[in-house]
Amino acid sequence: MSTYVYQRSVNYYETDQMGVVHHSNYVRFFEEARNAFWDTLGTDYVQMEKDGFFMPVLSVQVNYKKPLHYHDKFRIEVSLLAFTGVRIKVGYRVWNETQNTLACTGETSHCLTNQHMQPLRLPKYYPDLVANIQKELGDTIQNA
Amino acid sequence: MSTYVYQRSVNYYETDQMGVVHHSNYVRFFEEARNAFWDTLGTDYVQMEKDGFFMPVLSVQVNYKKPLHYHDKFRIEVSLLAFTGVRIKVGYRVWNETQNTLACTGETSHCLTNQHMQPLRLPKYYPDLVANIQKELGDTIQNA
Amino acid sequence: MSTYVYQRSVNYYETDQMGVVHHSNYVRFFEEARNAFWDTLGTDYVQMEKDGFFMPVLSVQVNYKKPLHYHDKFRIEVSLLAFTGVRIKVGYRVWNETQNTLACTGETSHCLTNQHMQPLRLPKYYPDLVANIQKELGDTIQNA
Amino acid sequence: MSTYVYQRSVNYYETDQMGVVHHSNYVRFFEEARNAFWDTLGTDYVQMEKDGFFMPVLSVQVNYKKPLHYHDKFRIEVSLLAFTGVRIKVGYRVWNETQNTLACTGETSHCLTNQHMQPLRLPKYYPDLVANIQKELGDTIQNA
Repeated sequence: MSTYVYQRSVNYYETDQMGVVHHSNYVRFFEEARNAFWDTLGTDYVQMEKDGFFMPVLSVQVNYKKPLHYHDKFRIEVSLLAFTGVRIKVGYRVWNETQNTLACTGETSHCLTNQHMQPLRLPKYYPDLVANIQKELGDTIQNA
Repeated sequence: MSTYVYQRSVNYYETDQMGVVHHSNYVRFFEEARNAFWDTLGTDYVQMEKDGFFMPVLSVQVNYKKPLHYHDKFRIEVSLLAFTGVRIKVGYRVWNETQNTLACTGETSHCLTNQHMQPLRLPKYYPDLVANIQKELGDTIQNA
Repeated sequence: MSTYVYQRSVNYYETDQMGVVHHSNYVRFFEEARNAFWDTLGTDYVQMEKDGFFMPVLSVQVNYKKPLHYHDKFRIEVSLLAFTGVRIKVGYRVWNETQNTLACTGETSHCLTNQHMQPLRLPKYYPDLVANIQKELGDTIQNA
Repeated sequence: MSTYVYQRSVNYYETDQMGVVHHSNYVRFFEEARNAFWDTLGTDYVQMEKDGFFMPVLSVQVNYKKPLHYHDKFRIEVSLLAFTGVRIKVGYRVWNETQNTLACTGETSHCLTNQHMQPLRLPKYYPDLVANIQKELGDTIQNA
């Protein structure tokens, strides 16, 4: 299983009065990293939405370890954890590169939907993406 | 000219590490207050968008006086400043009710557009809203 | 076990181009509701921070059901799920009151820390809050 | 007068249901670009705050031209417009690099303050920064 790496530094407006990144922003960081990762899997998400499809977030989990501060450089390691034919599970590890500490870990799950937010089977509509996901996961999906 | 009053208190996630409300959030506060004000003018903005119309922001100006802190109650006084037939100008005064100080003042301007962000004449599409705007401004629009 | 109820409606800036509330904002909604709930437990969080204490989020979990839209009224039911002497677990149910549907459910966990983000035992510093938490949970904490 | 250039692309969570970047986010983009610009002027803002100084925003003005969309690459041209000894004025031009259009223009003004948000004369505390500002503006400050 390979890992995609996304990097940037913390913006001032992402901090709160605790003097650290507000905890909700890690959910946004995950999205940034995940979307950059989709790009590498050959997904043109802009076109996907124009075609009437969405990939909403079904669940998110974050475990906070050591907060990031303004100006800290961070690195997010994104990896595919599972794919069931409908549901995709993605994992995240956010590293503080300035202090060399683990900031947080997390998971999100997703599925393909139409504009009415009804779930669809991804292999039916995006077989090439599924092939890339399978390659990424290093095994084939049973009964897909 | 009448003034519409909008009130709530500051959320924790609206602060930054300076220990005050991040300056970008006042632009969001203006939007909240303005949308509540539109409601009182008989504008159903949700329906407006369903009908293919938008009211985007053309410009915004904020003058910061004394920052709001977490948990402070604030009051926004919204008033219509001008209407040219195309462009609507709205003014804001944000008062800290906990400390009884002026937090900031500001202005935004808006126009009606179609989905391609092309400006449209409001009186043609929303005559009732224009009548309410005129009433609010206390005078009629010349050559509208 | 009692439930605290927090209510407001969705702001325009909380939506994304999917036409629904961005998923990260529910984490902010939880914070709003939780902080209003702390107030009812006799916690003056503003004073707490002035005294050098924080209550950071250790983990968050959200399960998204049916997205909220702009202008929807929603209600968050907040309840204490557990308290170990160090860690407090809080549960959330977000209801769309406009459409009478469950928008999402979630959990957060928290602890008291000093300014260096080192965990402290809550009963030592805030015995009155702990008494209220125990009352809320309907049972006493063993070996606290 | 030189111009500093800051570049990145639009994140999904920065859009709203109009399908474009929410107008409040340009104020955040300005901050990102400005802080990167401060860095090039030899300002260690992280240290500045540790030393008890702040550089809050006194005013902001944005004129919106053509909205940015999700995934668009943009470039912000930042330049110093004026410095009076107390107040610094900064200008911004945001270009959509994907569509080669001007997204918006804007200005912010700032001053140095202590932790009580009282304005201070910058030359007294940060003479090296002032020297760099003067160099950037291409002329000396009268009566500073």
